Amino acid sequence: MKLWGGRFAGNTAEEMAAFGDSLSFDRRLADADVRGSLAWAEAITAAGVLTAEEGACIREGLLRIRRELAEGSFAFQPSDEDIHTAIERRLGELVGPVAGKLHTGRSRNDQVATDLRLYVLDRIPGLHRAVRGVQEALVAQAEAHPGVALPGYTHGQPAQPLLLAHWFLSHFWPLERDLERLSEIRRRVAICPLGSAALAGTPLPIDREAVARALGFDRASDNSLDAVADRDFVVELLAWAALTASHLSRLAADLVTWSAPEYGFVELDDAYATGSSIMPQKKNPDSLELIRARAGRLLGNLVALLTVLKGLPSGYNKDLQEDKEPLFDSLDTLELALKVAAGAVGTLSVRPERMAAALDDLLLATELADYLAGRGVPFRKAHDLVGQAVRLALQRGVGLRDLSLEHYRSLSPAFGADLYEVLDVDAALARRRVHGGTAPSAVAAQLQRARECLAAESG
Amino acid sequence: MKLWGGRFAGNTAEEMAAFGDSLSFDRRLADADVRGSLAWAEAITAAGVLTAEEGACIREGLLRIRRELAEGSFAFQPSDEDIHTAIERRLGELVGPVAGKLHTGRSRNDQVATDLRLYVLDRIPGLHRAVRGVQEALVAQAEAHPGVALPGYTHGQPAQPLLLAHWFLSHFWPLERDLERLSEIRRRVAICPLGSAALAGTPLPIDREAVARALGFDRASDNSLDAVADRDFVVELLAWAALTASHLSRLAADLVTWSAPEYGFVELDDAYATGSSIMPQKKNPDSLELIRARAGRLLGNLVALLTVLKGLPSGYNKDLQEDKEPLFDSLDTLELALKVAAGAVGTLSVRPERMAAALDDLLLATELADYLAGRGVPFRKAHDLVGQAVRLALQRGVGLRDLSLEHYRSLSPAFGADLYEVLDVDAALARRRVHGGTAPSAVAAQLQRARECLAAESG
Amino acid sequence: MKLWGGRFAGNTAEEMAAFGDSLSFDRRLADADVRGSLAWAEAITAAGVLTAEEGACIREGLLRIRRELAEGSFAFQPSDEDIHTAIERRLGELVGPVAGKLHTGRSRNDQVATDLRLYVLDRIPGLHRAVRGVQEALVAQAEAHPGVALPGYTHGQPAQPLLLAHWFLSHFWPLERDLERLSEIRRRVAICPLGSAALAGTPLPIDREAVARALGFDRASDNSLDAVADRDFVVELLAWAALTASHLSRLAADLVTWSAPEYGFVELDDAYATGSSIMPQKKNPDSLELIRARAGRLLGNLVALLTVLKGLPSGYNKDLQEDKEPLFDSLDTLELALKVAAGAVGTLSVRPERMAAALDDLLLATELADYLAGRGVPFRKAHDLVGQAVRLALQRGVGLRDLSLEHYRSLSPAFGADLYEVLDVDAALARRRVHGGTAPSAVAAQLQRARECLAAESG
Amino acid sequence: MKLWGGRFAGNTAEEMAAFGDSLSFDRRLADADVRGSLAWAEAITAAGVLTAEEGACIREGLLRIRRELAEGSFAFQPSDEDIHTAIERRLGELVGPVAGKLHTGRSRNDQVATDLRLYVLDRIPGLHRAVRGVQEALVAQAEAHPGVALPGYTHGQPAQPLLLAHWFLSHFWPLERDLERLSEIRRRVAICPLGSAALAGTPLPIDREAVARALGFDRASDNSLDAVADRDFVVELLAWAALTASHLSRLAADLVTWSAPEYGFVELDDAYATGSSIMPQKKNPDSLELIRARAGRLLGNLVALLTVLKGLPSGYNKDLQEDKEPLFDSLDTLELALKVAAGAVGTLSVRPERMAAALDDLLLATELADYLAGRGVPFRKAHDLVGQAVRLALQRGVGLRDLSLEHYRSLSPAFGADLYEVLDVDAALARRRVHGGTAPSAVAAQLQRARECLAAESG
Repeated sequence: MKLWGGRFAGNTAEEMAAFGDSLSFDRRLADADVRGSLAWAEAITAAGVLTAEEGACIREGLLRIRRELAEGSFAFQPSDEDIHTAIERRLGELVGPVAGKLHTGRSRNDQVATDLRLYVLDRIPGLHRAVRGVQEALVAQAEAHPGVALPGYTHGQPAQPLLLAHWFLSHFWPLERDLERLSEIRRRVAICPLGSAALAGTPLPIDREAVARALGFDRASDNSLDAVADRDFVVELLAWAALTASHLSRLAADLVTWSAPEYGFVELDDAYATGSSIMPQKKNPDSLELIRARAGRLLGNLVALLTVLKGLPSGYNKDLQEDKEPLFDSLDTLELALKVAAGAVGTLSVRPERMAAALDDLLLATELADYLAGRGVPFRKAHDLVGQAVRLALQRGVGLRDLSLEHYRSLSPAFGADLYEVLDVDAALARRRVHGGTAPSAVAAQLQRARECLAAESG
Repeated sequence: MKLWGGRFAGNTAEEMAAFGDSLSFDRRLADADVRGSLAWAEAITAAGVLTAEEGACIREGLLRIRRELAEGSFAFQPSDEDIHTAIERRLGELVGPVAGKLHTGRSRNDQVATDLRLYVLDRIPGLHRAVRGVQEALVAQAEAHPGVALPGYTHGQPAQPLLLAHWFLSHFWPLERDLERLSEIRRRVAICPLGSAALAGTPLPIDREAVARALGFDRASDNSLDAVADRDFVVELLAWAALTASHLSRLAADLVTWSAPEYGFVELDDAYATGSSIMPQKKNPDSLELIRARAGRLLGNLVALLTVLKGLPSGYNKDLQEDKEPLFDSLDTLELALKVAAGAVGTLSVRPERMAAALDDLLLATELADYLAGRGVPFRKAHDLVGQAVRLALQRGVGLRDLSLEHYRSLSPAFGADLYEVLDVDAALARRRVHGGTAPSAVAAQLQRARECLAAESG
Repeated sequence: MKLWGGRFAGNTAEEMAAFGDSLSFDRRLADADVRGSLAWAEAITAAGVLTAEEGACIREGLLRIRRELAEGSFAFQPSDEDIHTAIERRLGELVGPVAGKLHTGRSRNDQVATDLRLYVLDRIPGLHRAVRGVQEALVAQAEAHPGVALPGYTHGQPAQPLLLAHWFLSHFWPLERDLERLSEIRRRVAICPLGSAALAGTPLPIDREAVARALGFDRASDNSLDAVADRDFVVELLAWAALTASHLSRLAADLVTWSAPEYGFVELDDAYATGSSIMPQKKNPDSLELIRARAGRLLGNLVALLTVLKGLPSGYNKDLQEDKEPLFDSLDTLELALKVAAGAVGTLSVRPERMAAALDDLLLATELADYLAGRGVPFRKAHDLVGQAVRLALQRGVGLRDLSLEHYRSLSPAFGADLYEVLDVDAALARRRVHGGTAPSAVAAQLQRARECLAAESG
Repeated sequence: MKLWGGRFAGNTAEEMAAFGDSLSFDRRLADADVRGSLAWAEAITAAGVLTAEEGACIREGLLRIRRELAEGSFAFQPSDEDIHTAIERRLGELVGPVAGKLHTGRSRNDQVATDLRLYVLDRIPGLHRAVRGVQEALVAQAEAHPGVALPGYTHGQPAQPLLLAHWFLSHFWPLERDLERLSEIRRRVAICPLGSAALAGTPLPIDREAVARALGFDRASDNSLDAVADRDFVVELLAWAALTASHLSRLAADLVTWSAPEYGFVELDDAYATGSSIMPQKKNPDSLELIRARAGRLLGNLVALLTVLKGLPSGYNKDLQEDKEPLFDSLDTLELALKVAAGAVGTLSVRPERMAAALDDLLLATELADYLAGRGVPFRKAHDLVGQAVRLALQRGVGLRDLSLEHYRSLSPAFGADLYEVLDVDAALARRRVHGGTAPSAVAAQLQRARECLAAESG
């Protein structure tokens, strides 16, 4: 069904039809499209364009279409080039020529932009919940292992002891920022372009603010030319998804590493692992690897749209049709990745004994330097002296505890017999009790803050 | 100056030193680094790590360094591998071994993260002003040409008449969204990581909230491991810059098109154009072309960092050093592009007569279809009938006004002699008086809203 | 159907199954998978792992599966997680437990890598033909309009006269480079990983070179660990597609511009244009806009995979499953875009009269400068003098031909009465007869070279 | 120094000058620019545009400039907007007004394109050598550790035993493909655009093939309009650099992992590691982390240029100035990364005892399944049976060797007492003697092929 036959003599080329097809992906806008049309029918009835009877007739037709879509009985035709055409065709079948009046004063341009925003508004709560799902799993794990310590790493090298709960929570806050961002983006999605028509505004005396509110938007857009071409909200969502996915990829990277027997800190539940077709002993962290990889796909989607937008003239251009597939793919992919991450984290087995075994006393070298600093040695000097002790310990294949007091004192007379007391994991943890630190007391306070974030929701 | 000699026997390879060098770009963090150190010195003095005298001594040294930096008399040494090392070295020269105490309980990791956030906080007002500059130029042009009309385009084809002021304002609102986003991002920049040390939190009894406030941050970060590796704010700024640049690229694309003699709607001031080395008649819109192109560069910077972050383990990894160059480049490039855009728009000459000449009456075909719709013809049918009239006019090389009433009536008896009245640009504009429409009254209201946005600032 | 049950106690989580699903996209590897298995069956029969009878039995089963796939009668099951599992399951149904012997000495890792390479080898000729299709359309248009001249543009501004055929051919050569690149890439696709097993090589005494040749590869891969994880060929194809698409986007950009009535140089056939739902006069170049936009999508696909590969450990990781969707999408999208481009170019109507009308004599300013240079004025000086003449002509709204000889002589005595002779489009074209220049003779020679490229194919 | 004053009345805006500045980066084209001008002077002397004397004079001036540039005595002026202007200005100072004749028949467009290609041709051998450097280090390490075995990993999990030399060589072949690609790209760089002028070809009777050969190109370009805007070679190099960097990032990822004490397979030389400012025990693999991260930057550069090119009109546009910075940055970054990689690999200490200790006998589970397969059990069944043995071993915390024959026979009567013989690392390695396999004999042959690749060079 073509909407623009009059001035055209020839038909669309076959490969062109395939190239321009969007029904394969925009059919998920069906419900939004019907809602948009219901609001428009009401608005133009109020404006006197439709009689009350015509308005009611169109309304009935649209509601029936909505039911058909919901039930799966809506029959698409080969001639339906997109979801809007399909619904318009069906409306004509159901209510006759009056259907053609629905499109008075409205253009495909403002219609599509409205539909896409409605669709996104529908998706946001699910995305929010999916992020919360991962956060809840992280908090639950943090709560379940209150006293467990393990090495913290920087540069992939053991650095200092950490509480495991601190590590779990270190992945909570990035997701909290993601939710903060999502709620900000939502405010810019909730602006209604309907009534902008093709580019210049509808000539009908419509109350655009009323239409906007009826559809659940916060307000109407400010400039019709901007409104039909504004895809900022799609770019923002794609960037949001890419950054959220990058957070998940970092979480996954840690867990892949820790699942290797060389670490053995955690074990994935069988539900989130797979085996090998050839090696019977394998248990592969496929879920985590896929989460890690999806970050690439989501970045690709963002690049796709920003490249499309580069240098595009004002107003609507067909190029903008390329907004939907990356958006749908990013939202679907991310939502599923979040669910898998929640499941994988939530069912993870922790191996405290392997973590404890990895708490080599070299992780306490900083404590020793701080000890010297506390005795008046400038920190830079203290660092150097302890570095020499470390070198000796490594050469001998022993720990810092195993070097003699004489040896320490040969490095610096500031060392006293109490130096061995600071070489203690629990003491090292407990000292880091500042806000955000890894001491048990600080982590407990942090956990409380995290719980409050989760509770804010249901409040 | 190495900060970590003790356990190392060998020296750094020459190409490795070049590879890891960051002084060439991180020296712009100098002032932030000194401020961070001043705050740290105060904090650890309060915590009793430094005596009041030591604290004062370090403070004096830092203030002198700050003066040297401001005056350009600070002498970098070949051994300075980054700005932090350079300042630490200089402090030692100025105050002696006590300088080494400044680094107690602080790591390079939280120091760098703090510096970078301070630097960004410094930059945001300038970026804000630069965006405002373009908006002001757009508003000024809109005000200067209140009654000028021109064709609006979709798909690169003339669509419907627009007010020129409406077009100028269509580029105002995307920038307004950019500023909204920038202020949101700022809130996430203004979180202070200082006191997170390397990954686990400082062992010193520091009041991190007080340190944060002293440095102008809103608050202290929640988790030390997250805090040293969180580069969300950099990603957000890079994405922000890429989207803002894409807005500028669309503005530039329109103006490049309109500068061609085939349109001739505008002429760039000589100050923003260049000539050709070989063709004496050329006046090239270089400023606009470069603005358009910079969108690619800013997208590239975003991709660079998100790719770096993909799959990176928790906590600090050296990979994160790759955050600064794309950030600095994006902020510098965008700020300059905004200034050039403000200048190019502000000095643009408008050619209303060329715009008027382009207002072919085919642009009014929609009016004719609306006219029929107003007489009860369903819009889809009306569209088709007018399409046939358009086809005939094109075949004859005439306008819609030039087709006879008989001809129109042969298409549909719904046409009346008053059809010619709707074929009028002013009438077409005036009908689009909804919120956000292109009618003079609606554009005046829109302009008022834009002015209020600008005024909010100075208020 | 799981291939790795033994060591696992639990089942796969539902969302994990959805997350890891690949059947939805890898089913297009079906034929390649069967061919790979046929070759493997033959190889392990030769190696004595299968008896001749077992080999024949498996061969029969595979051939029947191939027929079922070709006919569309192959019945997928919900438990089929990917195409390889589906075929393995079906083989078991057809030939019983002996089917399980097919997988001796082979891993999913080398199997998938082989399948994907076979699939790509199948696609390359179609891609090659599709590029040729655009080139043929360009050459046909160049041949059809031998004497037509139009303004050439730089910076979007009229620069110098060009032959239209020269412009068409300027889009031929980038595509010729694309084909050169494609044939180079093909050589790296045609390397067979089969026999690499999971990572270490098959333990069976297989002749890998014979297997490679039997499958149509050039040779066997060199290192089993590299072979199972090497996705260079996919990256190369994605980069190839992105660059080819960028060539098409530039062609499309020119044609979109020239389709605007302000230029009116060309008109798209109705088969490659669409109308507007609201504006009856519109004829929109949708085909070209979509071609232009697809360049973004193809760049996004490239970014997706390169980001996945960043920092990935050696050997096979599940992340590599993310290679297929971008690859399939890029090849499909590009092939269709090429076909649409061939159609749009091939059916394009050229408007020589509009082109001629645009040949303002300012385009000949360079001729005038060259004229002065020919009389001994250094070119830089000549350029400046003609620039002054241009300025005067613009101020007066006349052409260079309309300025008097006196005026020219007041600028420089080097001007003579014959200056008006160089202000001639045909003369300007004819002077540029160097290799690659726009003179009719040079373009004829260029066209001949282009024809030879096309002919080389069929030779 | 402006090259286009005549028609302009106003001056360039200050921020515009900064925005359009390219001298800061294009000064590295200086030598190429002089060479290009020398060739052009010769060509236009041969064409009779310059007298022999004028030609000689210009030649002398250019040679002097070349010396000044080489010696560092060339004095740039604030008015030099780019390197070409600077050289032209200086030539005028040296030889007077005749300098202005050099630019007859040549445009900035073909000049810049020629310079950039010459520059790239100069860089390719160094890039080639840098890749070879890494390959040589890999081969040397492979040769130095002929019998060392370690676990091979897939999905980050131990999979099967590998020879260490096999792993080193697995990183050799991707680099060999990179070199193959580089030599292909070189052929497309070596095409000379000089003589294309601004877009239409030079009007001078120049022998473009002779000019091309004189400058070291293979041939002259085919179409002047394509020639001035063709940046395919830059895109190709950026894509090449991005893929090569991704290879290095994978090598670096393995080594970062293996440097962690949990693996301890290798230790970086002190020359390629750094310490921590706070933790005296740290030895961080900074060199490897930076190599890994640079892959992001190089991908960003590729994205930048492809985005710039998207939808750009034919011929030269100022946007193309954005080709140089990403190109220079990618080549510099990659070359340095290659040198660091060569150094880091070449000086790496291998810890065979840690590798041996990691060779858990679960890595031999495949051998056991193959053993059963060899006794007629279909491989899929054999896999499942061994999987059950693995599960029991894991539950008991023992190896496969530690399970009793009775136990094995309870799983399947196909197990015999000789099953324990296959549980041997050396036997497992030796069985994989196919081409490309990890058996000592196969690796020796592979090493020989690698050596031949290296030798081909010097031959």
